[in-house]
Amino acid sequence: MRELKVELGERSYPIYIGEGLLQDVSSYFIKHGISSKSPLLIISNEHVAPHYLPQMEEQLKQAGFTVATAVVPAGESSKSIAQFEKLITVALEAGLDRHSTIVALGGGVVGDLAGYVAAAYMRGIRFVQIPTTILAHDSSVGGKVAVNHPLAKNIIGAFHQPEMVLYDLNTLQTLPPRDVRSGLSEVVKHGLIWDAEFVDWIDEHADQLLALDPEALGYALYKGCSVKASVVSQDERENDLRAILNLGHTIGHALEAVAKYNELLHGEAISIGMVGAAKLGVQLGASEEVYTVTKRVLKRCELPVRLPAHLDVDAIMEAMMHDKKFKEGKMVYIVPTGIGEVEINKSVSAAQVRAIVEQLKEEA
Amino acid sequence: MRELKVELGERSYPIYIGEGLLQDVSSYFIKHGISSKSPLLIISNEHVAPHYLPQMEEQLKQAGFTVATAVVPAGESSKSIAQFEKLITVALEAGLDRHSTIVALGGGVVGDLAGYVAAAYMRGIRFVQIPTTILAHDSSVGGKVAVNHPLAKNIIGAFHQPEMVLYDLNTLQTLPPRDVRSGLSEVVKHGLIWDAEFVDWIDEHADQLLALDPEALGYALYKGCSVKASVVSQDERENDLRAILNLGHTIGHALEAVAKYNELLHGEAISIGMVGAAKLGVQLGASEEVYTVTKRVLKRCELPVRLPAHLDVDAIMEAMMHDKKFKEGKMVYIVPTGIGEVEINKSVSAAQVRAIVEQLKEEA
Ligand SMILES: NC(=O)c1ccc[n+]([C@@H]2O[C@H](COP(=O)([O-])OP(=O)(O)OC[C@H]3O[C@@H](n4cnc5c(N)ncnc54)[C@H](O)[C@@H]3O)[C@@H](O)[C@H]2O)c1
Ligand SMILES: NC(=O)c1ccc[n+]([C@@H]2O[C@H](COP(=O)([O-])OP(=O)(O)OC[C@H]3O[C@@H](n4cnc5c(N)ncnc54)[C@H](O)[C@@H]3O)[C@@H](O)[C@H]2O)c1
Ligand SMILES: [Zn+2]
Ligand SMILES: [Zn+2]
Repeated sequence: MRELKVELGERSYPIYIGEGLLQDVSSYFIKHGISSKSPLLIISNEHVAPHYLPQMEEQLKQAGFTVATAVVPAGESSKSIAQFEKLITVALEAGLDRHSTIVALGGGVVGDLAGYVAAAYMRGIRFVQIPTTILAHDSSVGGKVAVNHPLAKNIIGAFHQPEMVLYDLNTLQTLPPRDVRSGLSEVVKHGLIWDAEFVDWIDEHADQLLALDPEALGYALYKGCSVKASVVSQDERENDLRAILNLGHTIGHALEAVAKYNELLHGEAISIGMVGAAKLGVQLGASEEVYTVTKRVLKRCELPVRLPAHLDVDAIMEAMMHDKKFKEGKMVYIVPTGIGEVEINKSVSAAQVRAIVEQLKEEA
Repeated sequence: MRELKVELGERSYPIYIGEGLLQDVSSYFIKHGISSKSPLLIISNEHVAPHYLPQMEEQLKQAGFTVATAVVPAGESSKSIAQFEKLITVALEAGLDRHSTIVALGGGVVGDLAGYVAAAYMRGIRFVQIPTTILAHDSSVGGKVAVNHPLAKNIIGAFHQPEMVLYDLNTLQTLPPRDVRSGLSEVVKHGLIWDAEFVDWIDEHADQLLALDPEALGYALYKGCSVKASVVSQDERENDLRAILNLGHTIGHALEAVAKYNELLHGEAISIGMVGAAKLGVQLGASEEVYTVTKRVLKRCELPVRLPAHLDVDAIMEAMMHDKKFKEGKMVYIVPTGIGEVEINKSVSAAQVRAIVEQLKEEA
């Protein structure tokens, strides 16, 4: 079992990563002072719940917790205001009070949604992240929680840190292969922004990761979470540094929106976006290697690097205008300057980005 | 012009109270660093907007601000998730970015709603409170923002402090008399929890207050805001002390809910609630004076002290169970121990409260 800490003063919390941690879920809850006098609400989705929810619920009840559960439909469309409102109703009907805890059992969708419910309910109650996807090594750490609006992703949200992150690697065994690959995209991102050696390591261990080898997975998720935790500790509310976590996301979010949040998974969209960022980096003076290595590692992880031809470039640019990474009209762009290092470039023009997006249709 | 400060470290902000402040609204905005490079959104309601919005919008535009506006229907029903979602759409369509500011021009409903939009939009942007009711001397200070759920009031919200509170006493001249009285209820509350002398002062000046005499109003709102600011500075997130601001609110919120948020105004409901709290205080050992003075001052302000006979006691108790002031099953109750002082009593039983609620139907 590996353990990490997100250092945020009185909001600090641990990340536990290991095999079989869910077998001890009640001990972790008790250790971290989760109250058994107030009801808990576990939020999961219809793919995850059948595998892991009944045992977890049973164990917590045995340990004296009062447990309510809510199972939402799978997929990004659950990160909606409508679903948010339904869960608030569930929380009220289950009698959650100010001392209650909401538990997110699932991937990034469940984590972001449940986290926002916890942030808003009674102006904020505690929550625990139990990530069950690889991608969620990213989403479960750092306290960004949100739901989507039809016009823009993650636009309605809060900063609300969990009490702990409990990462049971065994749950990843049931993850569909496409989601395994999508999740690796954020692992690669954490290497690309922070740690060149880790990028090499992924390059060499991509096969083990794709095969869900527990040893390789445990190490990769530990490294990925470490990068995320370091960045968040230095800049919780994204005043500056934290923006580097958006590598690949300016284009990526726009692609997800234009593809109506159903054609491209988040990790796939940002994989294409990271190739775009690497191209921009090279244009702005970084070594050609930045582009070739970025692309090679992503392909090793069987991630897409080419923009699907039918996605309309005008629509992509329009979606970008609605996104958050703008500062008084100018585009803020995370640009690689080498492998394992990026800069926050505040003077990238829309025309430059448009040219890159067009070229992304030609990647092979 | 009177000025006050809410001391909250890096989240500190000023409260300006005076006649005609809106004539200088753009100077206040510039002085407080409200960016004119990013669009502003002013949120108001259909009663307030016709009186004050056009001039304000015009002046801000003259000063170089880009201004969008949204006018919501009057009344508590605008504090809904549906209205919240509409305003997020407006903000997106107006191109608000992370450096934008949302301005609440109105009473507590507009302040709570607009504040929650500001708290959630892009995980939190800046906002300014421009209160136009007496009640809003309370709601505009302290950063509690929220919308309602059909099952419970203010259940969906955040702590999100404004950049400043700009209180133009002139706007109060158009306030309907019933809202004048309702607002005075929270002024009385601030006296009852903190400042016996101020309670005497209200007792003596109720007529001037009801007649909207600017000198009396300015003083009363300054005193009321001072109490609120002191309490909030000591306990921003209601871990303990801040709970005293809920004097009268345990019963009050339940009455509002049972009266379907249309029969009783907030201040009227808590007026009845404060009489209930005073009765409970006397039962628990406070001097009889606590009850007689509380009731006398509220009646001087022409506020109701008797529970309308047709409101069902079972329904009121049920609504209370859904409210927030419970700690692990027990009821937390703010009980006067004298005039100008209260205690946070954590062992009041539902049966005691029920008896009080029943007696409130007999008040005269
Ligand atoms: N908050 C943040 O900082 C942050 C960071 C990155 C991504 N995100 C968000 O994360 C979301 C994407 O996360 P995701 O990729 O985990 O998506 P997801 O939650 O939709 O999970 C992916 C798919 O796998 C299924 N699944 C999850 N765990 C499973 C398991 N153990 N076994 C079988 N099936 C399982 C899910 O039902 C879903 O169909 C996006 O909404 C994105 O915006 C947030
Ligand atoms: N956030 C907090 O800490 C806090 C504290 C107390 C109350 N509140 C909330 O405040 C709300 C009640 O506030 P309120 O009493 O100001 O209600 P309100 O905003 O509904 O205003 C009362 C009425 O007066 C009208 N009005 C407002 N200003 C006017 C003006 N200058 N001229 C003419 N008409 C005007 C409004 O349209 C409305 O009809 C409740 O929702 C309550 O929950 C919040
Ligand atoms: Zn991401
Ligand atoms: Zn109130």
